[in-house]
Amino acid sequence: MKPLPGFRDLFPEDFARRNYMVGKWREAARRYGFVEFDGPTLESAELYRKKNSGGEILGQLYEFIDKGERAVALRPEVTPTLARMITARHRDFPKPMRWFNVGTCFRYERQQRGRLREFLQFNCDLVGDASPAADAEVISLLIDLLRSFGLGPEDFAIRLSDRAAWHDFMTLHGVEKEKAGEFLTIVDRMEKMPPEKTEELLAPFGIASATLQEFIAHAEIPALAPLLADLEARGLREYVRPDLGVVRGLAYYTGVVFEAFALRAGLRAIAGGGRYDRLLADLSDGSADLPAVGFGIGDAVLLELLNECPTAKAQEVAALKADAPVQIYLVIADQTHRSNALFLAQQLRGEGWRVGFPLAQEKVGKQFGSAESLGASHAIVVGAEWPEVKVKRLSDRMEQELDHATLAVWLSEEEGRNLKLET
Amino acid sequence: MKPLPGFRDLFPEDFARRNYMVGKWREAARRYGFVEFDGPTLESAELYRKKNSGGEILGQLYEFIDKGERAVALRPEVTPTLARMITARHRDFPKPMRWFNVGTCFRYERQQRGRLREFLQFNCDLVGDASPAADAEVISLLIDLLRSFGLGPEDFAIRLSDRAAWHDFMTLHGVEKEKAGEFLTIVDRMEKMPPEKTEELLAPFGIASATLQEFIAHAEIPALAPLLADLEARGLREYVRPDLGVVRGLAYYTGVVFEAFALRAGLRAIAGGGRYDRLLADLSDGSADLPAVGFGIGDAVLLELLNECPTAKAQEVAALKADAPVQIYLVIADQTHRSNALFLAQQLRGEGWRVGFPLAQEKVGKQFGSAESLGASHAIVVGAEWPEVKVKRLSDRMEQELDHATLAVWLSEEEGRNLKLET
Repeated sequence: MKPLPGFRDLFPEDFARRNYMVGKWREAARRYGFVEFDGPTLESAELYRKKNSGGEILGQLYEFIDKGERAVALRPEVTPTLARMITARHRDFPKPMRWFNVGTCFRYERQQRGRLREFLQFNCDLVGDASPAADAEVISLLIDLLRSFGLGPEDFAIRLSDRAAWHDFMTLHGVEKEKAGEFLTIVDRMEKMPPEKTEELLAPFGIASATLQEFIAHAEIPALAPLLADLEARGLREYVRPDLGVVRGLAYYTGVVFEAFALRAGLRAIAGGGRYDRLLADLSDGSADLPAVGFGIGDAVLLELLNECPTAKAQEVAALKADAPVQIYLVIADQTHRSNALFLAQQLRGEGWRVGFPLAQEKVGKQFGSAESLGASHAIVVGAEWPEVKVKRLSDRMEQELDHATLAVWLSEEEGRNLKLET
Repeated sequence: MKPLPGFRDLFPEDFARRNYMVGKWREAARRYGFVEFDGPTLESAELYRKKNSGGEILGQLYEFIDKGERAVALRPEVTPTLARMITARHRDFPKPMRWFNVGTCFRYERQQRGRLREFLQFNCDLVGDASPAADAEVISLLIDLLRSFGLGPEDFAIRLSDRAAWHDFMTLHGVEKEKAGEFLTIVDRMEKMPPEKTEELLAPFGIASATLQEFIAHAEIPALAPLLADLEARGLREYVRPDLGVVRGLAYYTGVVFEAFALRAGLRAIAGGGRYDRLLADLSDGSADLPAVGFGIGDAVLLELLNECPTAKAQEVAALKADAPVQIYLVIADQTHRSNALFLAQQLRGEGWRVGFPLAQEKVGKQFGSAESLGASHAIVVGAEWPEVKVKRLSDRMEQELDHATLAVWLSEEEGRNLKLET
């Protein structure tokens, strides 16, 4: 039996990659003072109907009637839950609120490469501050997050745009307010569509695609100036490119929008976000009228990016190697000393080490093989010399005899070699 | 709008508790050489029908038909997924396999205090070794896990039993094989039922409850001797109590069964497990004929236990305090130096510190208030003295002037005060 199509089994080697990635997500968010929240995986289906952030998601809902006759749905995104939670308790928290979430989401997508039906998403939202300083914090967090994986300016860039500039454009060219969403969707997809298709879709608006391209290529975005100055002061300006070609698909953005963009094999968006100053008020019927800015990034697209970028990949490989299942392996050379080995195993585990040993009687050579295959850096031979033990560093076969009572101290001196439990 | 009944919103303070707990779960498992896996949240409903580990779960399934006409279900437990994954790839892994999972599970339980419909479970399974040494590893892990929360022998005990002893009892008293499950369920619930009820349920078996009680009180369990000797060698014997009164509800256990039991307010099971040597073979139609032993523990019952035990609670409170959202707060005393503060913030974040600062112009007193309320240990005043800054330790109001370029070094010397990012 296999998992359902679009769902994944994460075997330990897969989980280790995810864990590496999620660890970096959390570290980056915490360095920016963000705190983690989570909500239910299953919500009332009404929560998503009410929001309707862009029709597509509703058609992909995993929804059903539960045993209590409630219409329920697996969450397709976390923002509606965030809005619900903030509405309920925003008065309890000083502003701005810096909240992040690492959560599983579900969408019944058409089956195609890289499209999953259950995926992990990292969302960061800064709520209660409408200034460019807040935009800069969130964009800096996204840049630092990507840098923490060993990605550099040759691997990614942040394309920065402003919905307000597009609203001005629409006003100037007579796009009706009710048609704004449709128009912005065309702009959003333009880069992926053949020019004839764009021309065809724009026809009802009476706008030529050349007019659009001209606007994207040459219009200034003066509203971005304070944000760019802020990023400049942080030393992050080189990562950011003002680019009106970015508008983002979701209907609810009101100001700055941005997209992290892969620059190597296949240019494509790897994360996106923006300012949504009216969404929380809309979702809470006005009771939580708070401006907000945030972004989201998915696991699959990021893992693919790491595979493409040599420095990042090397860093990941080194980190996974350092995170081996076992750090110290006890080789039991003499079964009459199994009790002593058990005692020593507990003692070292108590110090925080990851310790393995054979559960049954095995030849010494086989035990060394287990030590190597489990990734141990040191083997400790317990045998007739007890209370002396032999410590063997597996990287260079260095050997040393020690009293077992002094072992913990000796091992902690080896910490400089990056051996100690790093979690 | 609220979450669905039986589902939880985890606001940041709730999430911090969960994070503390899950961190300890993972650390304990890793010290024993276990590696983490995960599977899909949604599986084919057939996977749970096939297993049928004890009728009750099937009646509580969140099941529905997806948009592709598949009968699917939210996982009520992770063991069937583990069995499916092991069946698919067990030949790729050396034995024994030590696997753990931290996963969300779903059961449509009747609404009552402490019963959740979405809950987090920690499962550890050692697969491919049928010896008491394997049982001892898993039980030691459970003990060490609970000890890592600051729980001691006055807070919990492990009650240890053996299904084999009960099978002997059933043979002796003529309980038919097909009735074994029903009989064991009665024994399992006996402690919580009025004696008349037990008597009534036992009547069809022709066994008096006094006979059962006599057996529980006086029978020896010689099969436990090697396991107990192993735990003795590890220094963990005091946590374990042989007790035939424990049988565990699930039908699939074949040998040792055990239960971690709370000893303070309200005696009750907080975790349970045992040996299941035939389950994997049954679920894989014989293709993965591997013995296994494991346990599971849920989040709600453990958090409740921590609340009851003073040492554990004090440890948790201290850990959460040390995990404050912000470690260093930059007080911007002079707005003309905002750019320098931004630069400094990025530099300190690059060193791994959790850094906060005001997004807008604020009075210095208010900024110190933010520093305190966010849990910062140090405030750094950036103002007219730049490139000098004033460092203020908030615990004792110690002040020092430093060149900002030497700040990173100065702060790393403060590490001994438990300030540095601990993730």
